[in-house]
Amino acid sequence: MLIKYDDAREMCISIFLGAGASPSEAEIVSDGLVESNLMGVDSHGMIRIPQYLGEVKSGAIVPGAPVEVIFQTPNSAIVDGNHNFGMVCAEHMVMTAIRKAESANIAVVSSRHCNHVGRLGAYTCVMAESGLFAFACANGGRHGHLVTPFGGLDGRLSTNPISYAAPTSSDPIVLDMSTSTIAEGKIRLMQQQGRKIPPMCAIDADGNETDDPSAFYGPPMGRILPLGGPFGYKGYGLSMMVEILGSALSGVGPKEEYEGDSYMNGFFILAISPAVFNASGTFVGHVDALKEYVLSSRPREGHGKVSMPGEPDFSVRADRMEKGIPIADGTWETIALAAESVGVDARRYG
Amino acid sequence: MLIKYDDAREMCISIFLGAGASPSEAEIVSDGLVESNLMGVDSHGMIRIPQYLGEVKSGAIVPGAPVEVIFQTPNSAIVDGNHNFGMVCAEHMVMTAIRKAESANIAVVSSRHCNHVGRLGAYTCVMAESGLFAFACANGGRHGHLVTPFGGLDGRLSTNPISYAAPTSSDPIVLDMSTSTIAEGKIRLMQQQGRKIPPMCAIDADGNETDDPSAFYGPPMGRILPLGGPFGYKGYGLSMMVEILGSALSGVGPKEEYEGDSYMNGFFILAISPAVFNASGTFVGHVDALKEYVLSSRPREGHGKVSMPGEPDFSVRADRMEKGIPIADGTWETIALAAESVGVDARRYG
Repeated sequence: MLIKYDDAREMCISIFLGAGASPSEAEIVSDGLVESNLMGVDSHGMIRIPQYLGEVKSGAIVPGAPVEVIFQTPNSAIVDGNHNFGMVCAEHMVMTAIRKAESANIAVVSSRHCNHVGRLGAYTCVMAESGLFAFACANGGRHGHLVTPFGGLDGRLSTNPISYAAPTSSDPIVLDMSTSTIAEGKIRLMQQQGRKIPPMCAIDADGNETDDPSAFYGPPMGRILPLGGPFGYKGYGLSMMVEILGSALSGVGPKEEYEGDSYMNGFFILAISPAVFNASGTFVGHVDALKEYVLSSRPREGHGKVSMPGEPDFSVRADRMEKGIPIADGTWETIALAAESVGVDARRYG
Repeated sequence: MLIKYDDAREMCISIFLGAGASPSEAEIVSDGLVESNLMGVDSHGMIRIPQYLGEVKSGAIVPGAPVEVIFQTPNSAIVDGNHNFGMVCAEHMVMTAIRKAESANIAVVSSRHCNHVGRLGAYTCVMAESGLFAFACANGGRHGHLVTPFGGLDGRLSTNPISYAAPTSSDPIVLDMSTSTIAEGKIRLMQQQGRKIPPMCAIDADGNETDDPSAFYGPPMGRILPLGGPFGYKGYGLSMMVEILGSALSGVGPKEEYEGDSYMNGFFILAISPAVFNASGTFVGHVDALKEYVLSSRPREGHGKVSMPGEPDFSVRADRMEKGIPIADGTWETIALAAESVGVDARRYG
């Protein structure tokens, strides 16, 4: 099925209001989910509604909990989400980072008790649209550690995504990538669709590389490899950087980090104004020139034209704004069921 | 042959003094090269002596040129290397970053007219040893653009390395990686040794993936792929970040960036004190705990024990400090010849 952007947003807002969120919380979470669908990142879109509602029910997410700055300097802040929606905490962090970067030229912001923040590119884009260079990364709780260190057999890391964005005179350049090869959710999808796992992505529980989703799931369950194949020390090294920035640097130790079973993100943001190098007047123009130069590469046979990081997602966005957001029937059923549990009739929108 | 650390250092200092460097410049460059050999990164070690001497001769490197801060704020600086040795410029940048990060908690430093800075991990390690989280990256001049954008046929990027380091109670955790799959120098080595290029690393001039160094070199010459194989948009995206940080953000446009034929690095450093999050007292302990947890993973069959990023290099260092630094005969001959050109008899040291 296809759902129109306006309908999707209205439906989501109704659902989160029904779950006890305030109007502004409901808007933030709905915009986060629907925007992910628009950008083609369906894994972080409305498919998460049942999960979030389940977490509200279990008490892992506490709508209305105060989101507070618990420590700050002129160029930094720690924001405590107090178990509110992760996106509500992240939104507060982004606004704080923009404000501080505008006065101090650089700002770093980290989180406490922050639930699932969703698609990192959403946050770096907002900062880039304020003229900043923005970087963000997020680590995750120990129960989600399916990614091995390079050469290892046991899961010790999450997918540990990183994102950055920089302004151009049109859409920002934006990278949003996991430091692992793939996410577990994608292997689940491959299993459902009878597809094979790409090479150098996954191992079974004995450590043998496998392209078979069933061998991956076992039981016992296999593990996901860090990005890079034979150069997997690179993906692993980047993943460790996410761990360090997401928790150790901001004073969060392993015990706090991995408390409980709820998925907690250690979310870290860095925002840099070009004013820090006296380059406010030239930054966008220079990124434009870089873009033009790189895009002047001919494509390889079998590939479409060369694009900027994030550019394909903006194309998907334009397309889905016009035609609507596709949702698989199975996903829609779980959304409708979740909606019903908070008194919303999803069929009104679909 | 094997050369002892002390001899190698003394020889290098004599050579660079002979080339017109001041005593402190000669020490900085010699330490940079010999330390790279110690850490096993021979591509950035004494093998570079002929190149550097050639650049001194051509005027691309100007020993004794003033290295100056040409713009600064409390948390930032632009350092102009004025075509001195890249390592001399980089050393100045690192000291500036440490000083500013100690007062402002965060600092960024970028370069102008900076020659080849060498192994990035050397710089991030020094900052980590001062208790900071350190990040560095470097882009390169257009004539060295052998790396394609993802899906592209033409070279538009250098190997664009990134590095970070964080302190532990023993050696720092340090990643130093190119955002491309491999460096051209390594393909050259594979050709000399009759070895094949690993999969998903290189294409010939027509864009066909090749494992044959001769097909890569052509002519016409092939290209190197960004890190990630089927996920090459990740390596490409990271490489674009290096471009943005290394030049656009600090006010350097493509024309300045790519001036002349000399290899110029756009070098960018970020240093963050844990004090920025009020975490000075806990940072090292938390990184230690993270390290212990990750190292508790069992190894996969066929792999050695799981190690921290950079740990294997520190093992090589200990070994080479004891036994000496191995240098291939051909490399030694080129070094001896270069040394002779500045009045130094390398045979005294080898």
